[in-house]
Amino acid sequence: MSRASSPLGLHRVLEPPGVLPQAAWRLDPSPAIAPDEVRVRVDRLNLDAASYRQLREAHGDDPDKIRAAVLDIITTRGKMQNPVTNSGGMLTGTVEESGPESPLGLKQGQRIATLVSLTLTPLTITDGLRSWDGKSEQVPCEGHAILFARSIAAVLPDDLPVPLSLAVMDVCGAPALTSRIVKKGAVVAVIGAAGKSGSLSAAAARQAGAARVIGVVPTEAEADLLRTLLLVDEIVIADARDPVALATKVEAAGGLADVTVVCVDVPGCEGGAILSTKQGGTVIFFSMATNFAAAALGAEGVAADVTMLVGNGYVPGHADLALGLIRGVPSVRNLFERRVAE
Amino acid sequence: MSRASSPLGLHRVLEPPGVLPQAAWRLDPSPAIAPDEVRVRVDRLNLDAASYRQLREAHGDDPDKIRAAVLDIITTRGKMQNPVTNSGGMLTGTVEESGPESPLGLKQGQRIATLVSLTLTPLTITDGLRSWDGKSEQVPCEGHAILFARSIAAVLPDDLPVPLSLAVMDVCGAPALTSRIVKKGAVVAVIGAAGKSGSLSAAAARQAGAARVIGVVPTEAEADLLRTLLLVDEIVIADARDPVALATKVEAAGGLADVTVVCVDVPGCEGGAILSTKQGGTVIFFSMATNFAAAALGAEGVAADVTMLVGNGYVPGHADLALGLIRGVPSVRNLFERRVAE
Repeated sequence: MSRASSPLGLHRVLEPPGVLPQAAWRLDPSPAIAPDEVRVRVDRLNLDAASYRQLREAHGDDPDKIRAAVLDIITTRGKMQNPVTNSGGMLTGTVEESGPESPLGLKQGQRIATLVSLTLTPLTITDGLRSWDGKSEQVPCEGHAILFARSIAAVLPDDLPVPLSLAVMDVCGAPALTSRIVKKGAVVAVIGAAGKSGSLSAAAARQAGAARVIGVVPTEAEADLLRTLLLVDEIVIADARDPVALATKVEAAGGLADVTVVCVDVPGCEGGAILSTKQGGTVIFFSMATNFAAAALGAEGVAADVTMLVGNGYVPGHADLALGLIRGVPSVRNLFERRVAE
Repeated sequence: MSRASSPLGLHRVLEPPGVLPQAAWRLDPSPAIAPDEVRVRVDRLNLDAASYRQLREAHGDDPDKIRAAVLDIITTRGKMQNPVTNSGGMLTGTVEESGPESPLGLKQGQRIATLVSLTLTPLTITDGLRSWDGKSEQVPCEGHAILFARSIAAVLPDDLPVPLSLAVMDVCGAPALTSRIVKKGAVVAVIGAAGKSGSLSAAAARQAGAARVIGVVPTEAEADLLRTLLLVDEIVIADARDPVALATKVEAAGGLADVTVVCVDVPGCEGGAILSTKQGGTVIFFSMATNFAAAALGAEGVAADVTMLVGNGYVPGHADLALGLIRGVPSVRNLFERRVAE
């Protein structure tokens, strides 16, 4: 690279100039790396589900056309970012060259997964995607990708199946932030406790010293599943979109909560989470269905002095913490294995 | 009231039963109060701007029809909640009766403003709105309203004009949360520092002991205004929607920030606020234009370990803190007086 490198990858942006790689139309995926970059030999792309669905619909389920469309996007843009959905996905591969100034700590030959989106990752495909049948979002391929100083990648552990590790890494921000916020002796409510991010968050709360973990699920079937996991102290079956019913049941189960963790991707859970939380407590919103204004106005409308956190997908060490929980808590591993098999 | 009272006002909900007053179609505005309620003699409604605009457009700017429509909403619903916009507004009035168990600390005869929305406040109008010309969102009227134990109301101070106090109370959550988060010696960036919530937040940061306050504004004209206020240490002129430009300029002005406060109601400021904040720092989003997913994914995309707070409009003591700043910082008062006069 002739230009000075930027930890954010600004030097790889070709057009329009000056924007972040994610906002760029086209990136420079040249294989030569700057001193703080890493080049990865790619073996698989995991396309974002929304992106793959759009491609399939736009091309009438024709695998050849879908394959050609993905190849065209990557060739044109220097990254895999669906121009309709704007979404990407992630990749797995092997570290080919790690620059001497890269802070990511990756070593040549390590098998890794990227935890930043394909929408900002310079990418070249060299095999024409010939090994991909076009029939699923799993894309076996050959090529290379570039990681910046501020990219996020995790080494795939030897002791766990790759699909399990990827499923864990996909939601690892939730348990990491939960672990940071929960204090010893706290009452913690996890809304959506039988899901992937919810079960990991419940395990993280327990590990952080929570005195009582209350798991909220929508159905008796999910409650049964949660019961077998022995992961929570109390199980509440409630519609998280009904604030009064939810808060009443959480209180009856030993709340209100010092910390409420929202892990269900359903709109309208803001008010219930707020009401289920003690004055002075904290709500962590991990659901992408969270509505900012509903949270802000909802708290004001009930005079709730609660701290409300936007669930940041990145917390240093998040992948290691989550993988540690999977290794240490057999019931969570069991639940993940079921979810991955589904 | 024959039913037991709820601090949230659930006992005033007529239909559908079991929902919060804000979500209810109809409330019971009966004047008899429960022991923890307060009855207010209303003298003015301030309709929400979006609500008034909708009413005006729906009724072809005919003041009589607009007046009849507002009266009909209040009579039908027992509260002023526009069924199209779902928004309300606030009111001013005089405390008529304060129940012995009310925690609001209000005394008979005090002039107050409600800081919770009209969308959840039981309301009866007794003068047919005959003093209102229907031509602005300011509605002089006679009637009564009910405050619950968890309502929020502030006593209007004797030493400040009412319109000034109302303008301050409208945004008082921002300086209160800023004051709580900013530690002595912190570098604070306020995006939209020449606005109402922004100038108060800058003053609150200064009062909380910030070592450096950086004010971000979009234009040279706003920079001139900010310069006369002597409220910030550094002024940055930047488009807050351009992450790289904003962060570069904030850094050049002595940042990155320990705390970034977003006070501009413009979509697309999430990335710039995140990039302008140090690793380990905090972003407080007060803009209702904040997009939850853009904040969550934006932080992850640049591996930013920042705490992101949803700006809760309620912090105990928020009105007093903001009014204290108006009294103590002449330049902020001056700015507010200009904005109120506009």
